Amino acid sequence: MKTLRIKILMESPSIGGKVKVKGWVRTFRSNRFIHMNDGSTVSNLQVVVDFEQMDESMLKRITTGACIGVEGTVVESQGKGQSIEIQADKIEVYGDADPEKYPLQPKKHSLEFLREIAHLRPRTTTFGAIMRVRHNVSFAIHQYFHEKGFYYMNTPVITGSDAEGAGEMFKVTNFDLDRVPKTENGEINWKEDFFGKATNLTVSGQLEAELGAMALGKVYTFGPTFRAENSNTTRHLAEFWMIEPEVAFNNLKDNMDLAEDFLKYVISYVLMRCPEEIEFLNQRQIDEEKGKPQNQRSEMTLKERLQFVVDNEFVRCSYTEAIEILRNSKPNKKKKFQYVIEGWGADLQSEHERFLVEKHFGSPVILFDYPANIKAFYMRQNDDDKTVAAMDILFPGIGEIVGGSQREERLDMLKKKMADFDIEEEEMWWYLETRQFGTAPHAGFGLGLERLVQFVTGMGNIRDVIPFPRTPKNAEF
Amino acid sequence: MKTLRIKILMESPSIGGKVKVKGWVRTFRSNRFIHMNDGSTVSNLQVVVDFEQMDESMLKRITTGACIGVEGTVVESQGKGQSIEIQADKIEVYGDADPEKYPLQPKKHSLEFLREIAHLRPRTTTFGAIMRVRHNVSFAIHQYFHEKGFYYMNTPVITGSDAEGAGEMFKVTNFDLDRVPKTENGEINWKEDFFGKATNLTVSGQLEAELGAMALGKVYTFGPTFRAENSNTTRHLAEFWMIEPEVAFNNLKDNMDLAEDFLKYVISYVLMRCPEEIEFLNQRQIDEEKGKPQNQRSEMTLKERLQFVVDNEFVRCSYTEAIEILRNSKPNKKKKFQYVIEGWGADLQSEHERFLVEKHFGSPVILFDYPANIKAFYMRQNDDDKTVAAMDILFPGIGEIVGGSQREERLDMLKKKMADFDIEEEEMWWYLETRQFGTAPHAGFGLGLERLVQFVTGMGNIRDVIPFPRTPKNAEF
Repeated sequence: MKTLRIKILMESPSIGGKVKVKGWVRTFRSNRFIHMNDGSTVSNLQVVVDFEQMDESMLKRITTGACIGVEGTVVESQGKGQSIEIQADKIEVYGDADPEKYPLQPKKHSLEFLREIAHLRPRTTTFGAIMRVRHNVSFAIHQYFHEKGFYYMNTPVITGSDAEGAGEMFKVTNFDLDRVPKTENGEINWKEDFFGKATNLTVSGQLEAELGAMALGKVYTFGPTFRAENSNTTRHLAEFWMIEPEVAFNNLKDNMDLAEDFLKYVISYVLMRCPEEIEFLNQRQIDEEKGKPQNQRSEMTLKERLQFVVDNEFVRCSYTEAIEILRNSKPNKKKKFQYVIEGWGADLQSEHERFLVEKHFGSPVILFDYPANIKAFYMRQNDDDKTVAAMDILFPGIGEIVGGSQREERLDMLKKKMADFDIEEEEMWWYLETRQFGTAPHAGFGLGLERLVQFVTGMGNIRDVIPFPRTPKNAEF
Repeated sequence: MKTLRIKILMESPSIGGKVKVKGWVRTFRSNRFIHMNDGSTVSNLQVVVDFEQMDESMLKRITTGACIGVEGTVVESQGKGQSIEIQADKIEVYGDADPEKYPLQPKKHSLEFLREIAHLRPRTTTFGAIMRVRHNVSFAIHQYFHEKGFYYMNTPVITGSDAEGAGEMFKVTNFDLDRVPKTENGEINWKEDFFGKATNLTVSGQLEAELGAMALGKVYTFGPTFRAENSNTTRHLAEFWMIEPEVAFNNLKDNMDLAEDFLKYVISYVLMRCPEEIEFLNQRQIDEEKGKPQNQRSEMTLKERLQFVVDNEFVRCSYTEAIEILRNSKPNKKKKFQYVIEGWGADLQSEHERFLVEKHFGSPVILFDYPANIKAFYMRQNDDDKTVAAMDILFPGIGEIVGGSQREERLDMLKKKMADFDIEEEEMWWYLETRQFGTAPHAGFGLGLERLVQFVTGMGNIRDVIPFPRTPKNAEF
């Protein structure tokens, strides 16, 4: 008999038929009702045991966390909350779970505790749901770009370049750190390292993706990126996954259109493909917020928020307009902001972004045309000579979810910018050559996968949306 | 007017209609015929210029490598080898390419030279085709697993574990290598490093994928993996992408079935979706082999080889049978093998694998049930006490493309194996706990993406199937 996944069994059960299912025991009540789960669905399957027909020593081994296989008959359920159940003919125990030792007992565990047992937490309903949503987000991303004629491009993780400029980098080396080779001058002799030079873990695949776009037209990356920053927050990881599309001939407006369409596609896909998970996570958030004071609760439920993003046009607002709105806002006038906005040129803090998104517009916002000096060297200078064609997409509750720009495609302008930013031309000869030979306008953006999964699942801490988070002082598992 | 991708224009042209295309000039002949390409297809689009209607100074800028936009009328082509062409109304030059300096002139460049200009090589017909095939291979992989109910799992790249045992690892550190902190005993003080312990780049996500399978049932990884090995061969990279499915309740036979079905699906997908690319690469290989002596040429063309893999069952042969075949083979008896097979227990070298695949069976081969002592600690011990439930899939021309096994799910057996392999239990507490709590039989395998892309494109050197290869002394771009 072929083993059936519980999700598939529940979606199209053949009442009266014989089936075989395999999974892990969640609870076993009254020596009669096993609730089991195989990781395919939020719902547990109820298995009904006639204990008089079963071996007693076997029944004793059916405890929370044990792994079992069940053969039996599909029947309509008498109980509430489930449409079918299995009348067990035969049960096999694959693996025991000593109730005295198994850490995942059927009670509410804190997210902090579950992070310490990240190897077991996908067996909980919450983390099972998060992992399935994360999968569907990832698949929707690949499918979106594939359907739009983009090519997936694996940009290098180990990079000899340190000009990406997005943050502090981890070193990659093959040296014995007890015996780092030195030159005659007493400097580290990188020539003797594996790659013959100093190398780091990438902070972004964008520069290489630009090379791809200048040949294939439309490319995207989807890979791990790294920040060696000592940020112990709910929004930062030292290792996270990033998606970076890059498109030849796109300008900033095309770039905004692409990002908005893309985000709506991915969120719609999850709403369509993971209704059970979203329902569960929605209820989870409602329950969680019951413990909070009224004014700290979300105005919308998770489901409402996701539907809102899909249904409404993102507000597009220039940096200059945003500064005017913020300067004249109540919290600014009353000096409630930690950083009071004095005028044009100020770098926006997360308190300002949240005010714009959550209070002023009540909608996702695309901010664009930022002052040149607070943005990266590769962003295209606007004709006003003060701003660059940059954009950030801000989401309620999350803040910046996408950052992008039209790129500086003019060789002379790019060289001038690199000089201003103290970036050596020789280091970036290959990047400059794409401007020297057949340059073209182009634009792209970066999306942090975990930020998006946080938004879609409503999870407050980024460590809870990646299987094994890497953060300062933590690389367990 | 909306810009059309050349591939889409060629697939469904509306003769007489106006279109706009943008791309890079491949050649410009007789001041009249531009061949241009936008990265979407093998075929160049012919643009016909009435030079008397065009600005002369603009026409001078149309050189190989320049980036242009063309508006014009779609007409049936008079010339051979193309069905349509564009009668240009208007041409705009976005970026020049000085013919004295642009390295990609319309002549045959060696693969070695192109590796030195990896930032430009996707603009060639060969590398454009390879990159599009690589994309379609990657997408087919995600789609296969998605359709089969697997969940994509991002296992960590930075790992505190060094027990994966698949090869030499790169160190990841935040230390200033000029001032590595020491303990009182003069040892490196890893506690002061970013993660509070020594960390490396992963060589495999398998152990973490097993944790996922023990909760979600069916998972797969698809991410970068690393080997700090000084292997300057056509088959090794220091950074490469690996796919690792892991399935609860699968035994070795299920694992073989999955791997065979999976490989056939991916290759079929590429044959269906990239006919133009495969045709081009097929012809490329035929042309290349014309320079070789008759006995070194492939017996099948690339297309025949791919079709053969899709149409035929893989031969399944135990290690023990394979040793008998090899021992009695001509090259063994005549001592033509570099490593003569004396008997059971010998580790198979690539010369033996090639003999089995290319000479003896003439088919992809799955070898299984290897001697325990030449395989990894986590492979399941067979009842004979001598062999483990391991499998390798060998492909013609490539050798090992997949390696996998049923995993040792019995806690006592696993502990014994770890002791034999000198692996500390404390280091792997989380891995052992999956055997302690609700263990289940499970199996999985690893596929090197680049090896598969080599097979599908027929490229001889692995450096030519990844955008920016990392190899000893080379981390350029």
